[in-house]
Amino acid sequence: MILSALATSVGLNLALTVLLAAAYTLLRGRPPYAEVYAPRRPYAPLEPWLPAAWRRSEDDIHAAAGLDGVVFIRIFVFSIRVFAAAAVLGVGVLLPVNFLGDQLREIDFSDLPYKSIDLFSVSNVQDGSKKLWLHFSAVYIMTAITCYLLYHEYKYISCKRLEYFMTSKPLPQHFTVLVRAIPVSDGVSVSDAVDKFFREYHSSTYLSHTVVHQTGKLRRLLNDAENICTKLTNLKYVHRSSGDAPRKFLGLFGRNDLLGQYQKRLEDVEENVRLEQSDATRRQEIPAAFVSFRSRYGAANAIYIRQSDNPTEWQTEHAPDPHDVYWPFFSTSFMERWIAKFVVFVASILLILVFLLVVAFVQGLTYLEQLKQWLPFLRNILEIAVVSQLVTGYLPSVILLFISSYVPSIMKLFSTMQGFVSVSGIERSACNKMLRFTIWTVFFANVLTGTALSKAEIFLNPKEIPSKLAVLVPAQCAKCCRRDDSKAPSMPYHSEIPRILLFGLLGLTYFIVAPLILPFVLVYFCLGYFIFRNQLFNVYAPKYDTGGKFWPIVHNTTIFTLVVMHILAIGVFGIKKLPLASSLLLPLPVLTFLFNEFCRNRFLPIFEAYSTESLIKKDREEQNKPEMPEFFSNLVTAYRDPALKPTQRSSNSDERTAPLLATM
Amino acid sequence: MILSALATSVGLNLALTVLLAAAYTLLRGRPPYAEVYAPRRPYAPLEPWLPAAWRRSEDDIHAAAGLDGVVFIRIFVFSIRVFAAAAVLGVGVLLPVNFLGDQLREIDFSDLPYKSIDLFSVSNVQDGSKKLWLHFSAVYIMTAITCYLLYHEYKYISCKRLEYFMTSKPLPQHFTVLVRAIPVSDGVSVSDAVDKFFREYHSSTYLSHTVVHQTGKLRRLLNDAENICTKLTNLKYVHRSSGDAPRKFLGLFGRNDLLGQYQKRLEDVEENVRLEQSDATRRQEIPAAFVSFRSRYGAANAIYIRQSDNPTEWQTEHAPDPHDVYWPFFSTSFMERWIAKFVVFVASILLILVFLLVVAFVQGLTYLEQLKQWLPFLRNILEIAVVSQLVTGYLPSVILLFISSYVPSIMKLFSTMQGFVSVSGIERSACNKMLRFTIWTVFFANVLTGTALSKAEIFLNPKEIPSKLAVLVPAQCAKCCRRDDSKAPSMPYHSEIPRILLFGLLGLTYFIVAPLILPFVLVYFCLGYFIFRNQLFNVYAPKYDTGGKFWPIVHNTTIFTLVVMHILAIGVFGIKKLPLASSLLLPLPVLTFLFNEFCRNRFLPIFEAYSTESLIKKDREEQNKPEMPEFFSNLVTAYRDPALKPTQRSSNSDERTAPLLATM
Repeated sequence: MILSALATSVGLNLALTVLLAAAYTLLRGRPPYAEVYAPRRPYAPLEPWLPAAWRRSEDDIHAAAGLDGVVFIRIFVFSIRVFAAAAVLGVGVLLPVNFLGDQLREIDFSDLPYKSIDLFSVSNVQDGSKKLWLHFSAVYIMTAITCYLLYHEYKYISCKRLEYFMTSKPLPQHFTVLVRAIPVSDGVSVSDAVDKFFREYHSSTYLSHTVVHQTGKLRRLLNDAENICTKLTNLKYVHRSSGDAPRKFLGLFGRNDLLGQYQKRLEDVEENVRLEQSDATRRQEIPAAFVSFRSRYGAANAIYIRQSDNPTEWQTEHAPDPHDVYWPFFSTSFMERWIAKFVVFVASILLILVFLLVVAFVQGLTYLEQLKQWLPFLRNILEIAVVSQLVTGYLPSVILLFISSYVPSIMKLFSTMQGFVSVSGIERSACNKMLRFTIWTVFFANVLTGTALSKAEIFLNPKEIPSKLAVLVPAQCAKCCRRDDSKAPSMPYHSEIPRILLFGLLGLTYFIVAPLILPFVLVYFCLGYFIFRNQLFNVYAPKYDTGGKFWPIVHNTTIFTLVVMHILAIGVFGIKKLPLASSLLLPLPVLTFLFNEFCRNRFLPIFEAYSTESLIKKDREEQNKPEMPEFFSNLVTAYRDPALKPTQRSSNSDERTAPLLATM
Repeated sequence: MILSALATSVGLNLALTVLLAAAYTLLRGRPPYAEVYAPRRPYAPLEPWLPAAWRRSEDDIHAAAGLDGVVFIRIFVFSIRVFAAAAVLGVGVLLPVNFLGDQLREIDFSDLPYKSIDLFSVSNVQDGSKKLWLHFSAVYIMTAITCYLLYHEYKYISCKRLEYFMTSKPLPQHFTVLVRAIPVSDGVSVSDAVDKFFREYHSSTYLSHTVVHQTGKLRRLLNDAENICTKLTNLKYVHRSSGDAPRKFLGLFGRNDLLGQYQKRLEDVEENVRLEQSDATRRQEIPAAFVSFRSRYGAANAIYIRQSDNPTEWQTEHAPDPHDVYWPFFSTSFMERWIAKFVVFVASILLILVFLLVVAFVQGLTYLEQLKQWLPFLRNILEIAVVSQLVTGYLPSVILLFISSYVPSIMKLFSTMQGFVSVSGIERSACNKMLRFTIWTVFFANVLTGTALSKAEIFLNPKEIPSKLAVLVPAQCAKCCRRDDSKAPSMPYHSEIPRILLFGLLGLTYFIVAPLILPFVLVYFCLGYFIFRNQLFNVYAPKYDTGGKFWPIVHNTTIFTLVVMHILAIGVFGIKKLPLASSLLLPLPVLTFLFNEFCRNRFLPIFEAYSTESLIKKDREEQNKPEMPEFFSNLVTAYRDPALKPTQRSSNSDERTAPLLATM
């Protein structure tokens, strides 16, 4: 890639970014977007968004988006710090050294715009040059800085997590345990078995339990009702906005006929739902229950000490947040889950293969000559300089990004099939899948097979974030006709993380080879920081809070990134005929792994469970608080399957437009 | 190897076995062996040992050798069952089929003794023959039988383990937790910190604690005392048995001079020991303590729920049996342990390399011609048929066995250096190391590089066990001059297991290739069964009981063995041009792994911890028993470092000959 092509791409992207930010600033106050971007909190006026994002403190973010939101923002803070250091080192030291090298050719400033950007890369430093020790030191310094920042951030977030626990209101999930594989003898109900067992072995702390029921049929009926309801809503909306116009689209049926028909079907389905809900004998008990305790420590006892002599019975685990429970999980049988796992395994492999084919095709696009051969009728257009630069420098990454934007939803589908009790579990698993997929396909298959620098364009799409959020989110939100928090989408942290980490991965691993990209990565993270700080406040509402449980994923990926950087650096010094530097780099990955092991021991347990110290302190603190009796009485019904809750909807109310189940 | 060489070897070994068994039967009643083999229980007379071994029930073994003894015997029961089935299938079906094959040559019974034993192996079946489907079925049948027996045995031992727990007397280790990494602020002793913490968070169940002290210096003094004491004992023994004769060995010093000198040094050292023991201010506290609770469930609570917000502080784990604690562990610093781990890692690699060199040399011995070249002066002797057969068929395995007999002690040394809290932990780790070493060097490097059958001689040394036990054990025991249980050696289960499993590994993996070896393996296990059932009763006394915790090692190795068998069978059917059979075998290792996964979930947790159900039942059962107050008062001092216990020895008593520390 030559410098002028890079400049064109940068210019284009910057222009797009400014344009979109301006459009966002202008349009967010007008209908239909005003409703979407209206501040969720009444006290926050529709102020200029950039300074507002800057002014808000972490406590504000905590209040609006929970600890998950805070930790998500910390990813950007951490990345900005890392890449600020990297940019200083890379652009301030390595870039001049590279450019003043003479491996590629004599310095000649006259024709600068048409020089290859390889001039700024380590390739330009003479083989075996003493200057390479600067690069060597940079690897050590950068590793030290990153590890220090990682440690600092892990510690900070761990403290936040403990602080959050100690200051939180009593939450149902802290007092509740999910019990599975309940053994039932003939003639005894699951409910009786649970009651007997916990009264026997946890007499002092046991409070109540909710047995899970088979609600697959009920859920299908509710789905039907919701679909009909949506159709009705659309019909009414079309009618309202265009008067009698819809009549012509409806063919033989008049508007009122169709409305009446849907209304009738809706009433039938609702009657069925009410029947199913009221008749408990129709529902089959599932050998699983949510068991609640009088104290957090009591619940912890039931989770961490095996309950039964037979380890496959009375299996206990943390109960998820009531809004986080993935109810369909309980309606699938063990065998179904087992088969689903196998199917997912095969499908994952197929997905990677298909994606690699697509990547191979896209790689072809970067070679203009090949493209001309494929599409001879475009030959004339492709000969125009700007068009050719657009096609080689821009189109491949757009196609890749377009295709890879579908991968997260596929991964989420896979994780859903695998069987998780909670939505956050599904999302975390999908996030991990996505990371692995990204690293294998985009990073290893795409970037490492091409030359390192020809892929720098991947960094030149910071416009992607504002455009995505400014365009897609309103479209999603517009579906919710009445604006309230329960309808606002939940921030898709887990699907954003792999994307963000990929930038970090590319940025750090190319640190030595091509420092030119570092400022772009820094700009990306700064932009991301502001944007996410703002659309956390106004667009998203947290459905549940995992307490930043996704941070270890970020930590592990950064460690992986560092080791990849070390391996690349070892390779580079080998090629550059400085084998001593290669050998002296060998301890670095080992030290990095030891650092990781230390962090794993020091911090990871905090993300998995709370300690006796915290649990007992918190229990004692709240023991005599006046609100506890009310909390416990609510706790008894907190884990009722939402499909069994009576619907608050009256089917005759015309105002009614929201979907049937607010909480599902 | 030709058939007659095999026959010679078998004959020789059988003769040796009979000879040694006879010698054992005759000599066990006479001095000095009578003392060693005298029955440990007064009610068991010195009866004929073989029928006695047969008559004894599992309960007797349990009473004499603990659950570890029972589980150890079950290894033989399991192996006998597996190899009985394998021998029926192998010798009854596969052997005739192989022998009647005509791949190697036409059948000719006239010259049978000089035929190669390859005639009995699968090599003799014609390529692509339909008869190979018999071998194919045998693999499936044998896998099914082994898995069934594995499941049966795992279940049986798990039940025994639970039964043992429910019927056991109250044991200190069930009520006690080892706490490490105790954080201490200035001016507060470790003891006070422990007391404060457990009174705060475990007020209802906390009983007492024992802080561990730095006793490295004291231990060195005690070691000195023991060494001097041993020398004194030997001196007195020599004097008693030979009158004035020793005078001539003693050079310038007279006997009494030397005795007096040793006596003086012993008194000095003992004075120092008493000073160290009495002066508590001289000893440094180590931030570790044994904390005892009023109930087993209370102790379990402290183990399984993380205690502190900082996961690197207040780390808890199961306390070992008081006799099983490896006290020197506490005197080594974190850094020392870390360096030791690194040293062990490097030394393990060196050990494997050295051993491979030895194996390469021994392999050379089996080629007689090469031997004649190396040692030309032996040419005449080597030409004698019996000698040549001895050298090629016998010498290599003797050398290998001799060298590999030193490996277990090296492995134990390695494990000791790595840092374990308990002796059983060290032994289990050494057992695992030994298994891996055995599999890599003896099995993969030695057997797979030679041809399969030429190594069958490894099986022809069942004599090794009686000889080893009849010769080595008395020598060891003779050191203890007064016979009592505390001096009897503890059965070295963990160092015997890799040896036993190696036979199973070789037997099962050669099942398809060379069924001729199966009867030998069966005989080996039968002999082992009787021998270990007997010398468990009379020679060994259990020092501690892990409750059969080593069974999962046996289970895992058997699963590994099955998979190696599958891989070999897939290879054999490939070579024998029956690719369909190879493909149809592919699901078998997958199914075996799934079976293993099932067992891991179903049984392994029982070997790691007891359940709430068991703990609470047992606690309630004993709550009001009259012996409990006495048990609790003993529990308070159960975990005192033996180096701090006052020595019962009076240095002036001449009868005193036992080492200073009985319990160490």
